[in-house]
Amino acid sequence: MILTGNLLIGRASVPGTQAEIRAINPATGESLDPPYHGGSTSDASRACELAEAAFPFYRETSLEERATFLDTIASQIEALGDALIERAMAETGLPRLRLEGERARTCGQLRLFAGVVRSGEWLDVRIDPALPERTPMPRADLRQRHVALGPVAVFGASNFPLAFSVAGGDTASALAAGCPVVVKGHSAHPGTSELVGRAVQKAVAECGLPEGVFSLLFGSGRVVGQALVADPRIQAVGFTGSRSGGLALMATAQARPQPIPVYAEMSSINPVFLMPEALQGRGKEIAEGFVASLGMGAGQFCTNPGLVVGIRGEALDIFIEAAAEAVKGSSAQTMLTPGIHGAYRDGIGQLAGEAREIARGQAGSGPCQCQATLFATTAADFLGSEALQAEVFGASSLVIECSDAAEMRAVAAALEGQLTATLQMDDGDLEASRLLLPILERKAGRILANGWPTGVEVCHAMVHGGPFPATSDSRTTSVGSAAIHRFLRPVCYQGLPGDLLPEALRDDNPLGVRRLVDGKREA
Amino acid sequence: MILTGNLLIGRASVPGTQAEIRAINPATGESLDPPYHGGSTSDASRACELAEAAFPFYRETSLEERATFLDTIASQIEALGDALIERAMAETGLPRLRLEGERARTCGQLRLFAGVVRSGEWLDVRIDPALPERTPMPRADLRQRHVALGPVAVFGASNFPLAFSVAGGDTASALAAGCPVVVKGHSAHPGTSELVGRAVQKAVAECGLPEGVFSLLFGSGRVVGQALVADPRIQAVGFTGSRSGGLALMATAQARPQPIPVYAEMSSINPVFLMPEALQGRGKEIAEGFVASLGMGAGQFCTNPGLVVGIRGEALDIFIEAAAEAVKGSSAQTMLTPGIHGAYRDGIGQLAGEAREIARGQAGSGPCQCQATLFATTAADFLGSEALQAEVFGASSLVIECSDAAEMRAVAAALEGQLTATLQMDDGDLEASRLLLPILERKAGRILANGWPTGVEVCHAMVHGGPFPATSDSRTTSVGSAAIHRFLRPVCYQGLPGDLLPEALRDDNPLGVRRLVDGKREA
Repeated sequence: MILTGNLLIGRASVPGTQAEIRAINPATGESLDPPYHGGSTSDASRACELAEAAFPFYRETSLEERATFLDTIASQIEALGDALIERAMAETGLPRLRLEGERARTCGQLRLFAGVVRSGEWLDVRIDPALPERTPMPRADLRQRHVALGPVAVFGASNFPLAFSVAGGDTASALAAGCPVVVKGHSAHPGTSELVGRAVQKAVAECGLPEGVFSLLFGSGRVVGQALVADPRIQAVGFTGSRSGGLALMATAQARPQPIPVYAEMSSINPVFLMPEALQGRGKEIAEGFVASLGMGAGQFCTNPGLVVGIRGEALDIFIEAAAEAVKGSSAQTMLTPGIHGAYRDGIGQLAGEAREIARGQAGSGPCQCQATLFATTAADFLGSEALQAEVFGASSLVIECSDAAEMRAVAAALEGQLTATLQMDDGDLEASRLLLPILERKAGRILANGWPTGVEVCHAMVHGGPFPATSDSRTTSVGSAAIHRFLRPVCYQGLPGDLLPEALRDDNPLGVRRLVDGKREA
Repeated sequence: MILTGNLLIGRASVPGTQAEIRAINPATGESLDPPYHGGSTSDASRACELAEAAFPFYRETSLEERATFLDTIASQIEALGDALIERAMAETGLPRLRLEGERARTCGQLRLFAGVVRSGEWLDVRIDPALPERTPMPRADLRQRHVALGPVAVFGASNFPLAFSVAGGDTASALAAGCPVVVKGHSAHPGTSELVGRAVQKAVAECGLPEGVFSLLFGSGRVVGQALVADPRIQAVGFTGSRSGGLALMATAQARPQPIPVYAEMSSINPVFLMPEALQGRGKEIAEGFVASLGMGAGQFCTNPGLVVGIRGEALDIFIEAAAEAVKGSSAQTMLTPGIHGAYRDGIGQLAGEAREIARGQAGSGPCQCQATLFATTAADFLGSEALQAEVFGASSLVIECSDAAEMRAVAAALEGQLTATLQMDDGDLEASRLLLPILERKAGRILANGWPTGVEVCHAMVHGGPFPATSDSRTTSVGSAAIHRFLRPVCYQGLPGDLLPEALRDDNPLGVRRLVDGKREA
């Protein structure tokens, strides 16, 4: 498939007119063809116009139609074959195996949502039948279902060129909910984005859906993105990226005449708590697991373990020594973009001024090569410094030495919101963990024991979310089947004649969905 | 029970130190004893401190403990006896029957949420068991439950001194979710608020809960309210009131270092669509129903039908004539406060400058007496005027004369978000209604056929919500059992030892809750 360098607006392939965007192979510094040109605000407006035009039809597609569409997107992405993997490798510096795994996750995610759509549980059908004889007042017939919010703007993430980009989690859950999607592709991987975008375009056509169900825009700077979020036809926003980027979108969304929800996943340092007995018994083993998690994907995971909290002493020293050895032995890796690489260098430079450097990984020779870095500091210094609490995107982590378990809890209590919090614990740590758990529950969307936060399972129980600033809205998740609820709202129908009721709410339950009738679950 | 005029901060009864707040009997203009003095920002801070201290315990109370607490509040409110009704009558000018009904609704609401808590469905338990043999990667054990957000600030509404005030819907749903509540009582009914607040205080003591589970503050102006919303311990806000008040709270909540959700119910004109055949066949009967709904509670319902849309012609003329007769015959009613009465007079004064006045109800002689008022205008004029689309709180409504069904739809499409939209329709109107319905679904939280929007059933299928500016968050409801979801967030537990898991998530399901296991519903 030959890349065009164009925007995809509905079924059209349109050359951009704004500043050029060039993918750069971060491993070589080589600039990749074709050039992409950013969309204008009128391109954004046209995409929103088509999305709005598609919405009345798309939101009322049958469960089976919509599920088939999601399945078709997955098949079309697979049909891109190795060209997709090769382009993504060139644009991101990520290795083949990782990208093949990410493609499998992306397609699995689409198919998971197809299943979610088919089940109809997301409709949350509730029926309170009329009680005409009730005194002192009769009750009308009342029925509730959920409906789609409207067109959604999705921002592709840099660090998951497939799973959180053009047809990633936000797109899949919004389409599942019945919302047309306008994606702003990330400028770091426009070719990968175009390939996936064309796969979605094909699926739209194959399924006979209105073209506006999907568009893909590019744009450097914030012009196109802000135009999308400000567009009155956009009704929700999905974003994964920097804290400053997320805050800017939140501000724009709130300043609209009609404010809209923004689901921004922004910043997390994912603390790991080394509980005393675990640290004592298997500190070296934990250190190896930790450094493996730290280095995964060159540390460019939202769930990268950027903080390790333990009690000062011999066991912690042994852990630090083992972790330092592993870090020193770790190879340099290619980061996604020169910008991300530069920010990582700046970030560890700042940390170096505030904490003591324990170890640094092997130097690389390419232009975007990063070395894993390990720092340490005391709890007192950590608690006194905002800089030490800020996320450094990349394979950098900070060990916090606490005087006792109470100080570990104080560190936990002082943290900002997180995507994850991890306990390394053994049986003897149960009571100490029990004291820590309620603190962590208020800080994080996911709590792990004896695992590592990198690697987010796409399933029903997953929560990839958490209190601000991990995300802008702790009430939802961006990964897993529950993400569909982000793009829905309830509507109640009172006394409607059966012929006017949506199919989901009819007495004979033609969709066969589970219902809450008069407060009781139907079998 | 003798009123103290005090703030209730935890278990303490504390005199306020700020400007005096005096309830006024709107029917007589008489100022009522005792004087209340507003709380200071340090009172607000103290209430939040207690709420925060109570939270770790309260959020983990058992289902039965929390349900019993809600039941106990209802019993304690009932135990206040007629003193509550008499004080509420004096403070609001609302008639006895209405307030007795509202008390029943308030207590019923608390007991409904007790049932919701007991069922445990709100936990939304999901379990994805470990798959250690899965290739290429094993799956960890993943479990999800919902937890309470944290302390909640609730603002009492003027127009429901019981059902949307101190122990009203927002308080009941927040307490049900496991959130301590700090109420700012409405200055129009401080005595009613104190009585109910003391009933809640008693229930807290009777149930052996930490005192900070509930506090009640007073304050004129916005100082105490803004202090509550800005307090870092407050994690969500429930508000029913004016658009300007709601927007101010939203701005404060967004400007916090950690933004929090605000559930503000603000403004709705609740359009009623007179479909041609219904208008033709029973215009007079509809007119009577309409004027009865319009005048209910002196028009001081959020769901008051402030807009009637029909097609110009003889049938609409007959409807207008009948409605005008009914309005002219309607008695003056006492509005809640001099301020609300003044705003109503200003509002109908403005309408009178832009639309033609059709009828006005009978004049009253007391200080806060309002006359129902009916206006009419053309669709073209309505579509061209923002003022005509603004809510006038009170028994005022505007008939829009359209040239045809298409123009009715254009009016519907131009509306802001609404709590309700109503169709008056007969069998022959089915096709025209089918065209209107998708437009209304995007505008309103509840759609009625052949009923009236006033009178909101507290049940499972109810949606009292809707797109902005009806509310600040269309994804939820403020009335009905689904309101509990406003105050919850999901947490995922990965690989936790059984001994550390919350009860709701244990293998043996000790709470007996319905669970989604590996994506399948357990029987």
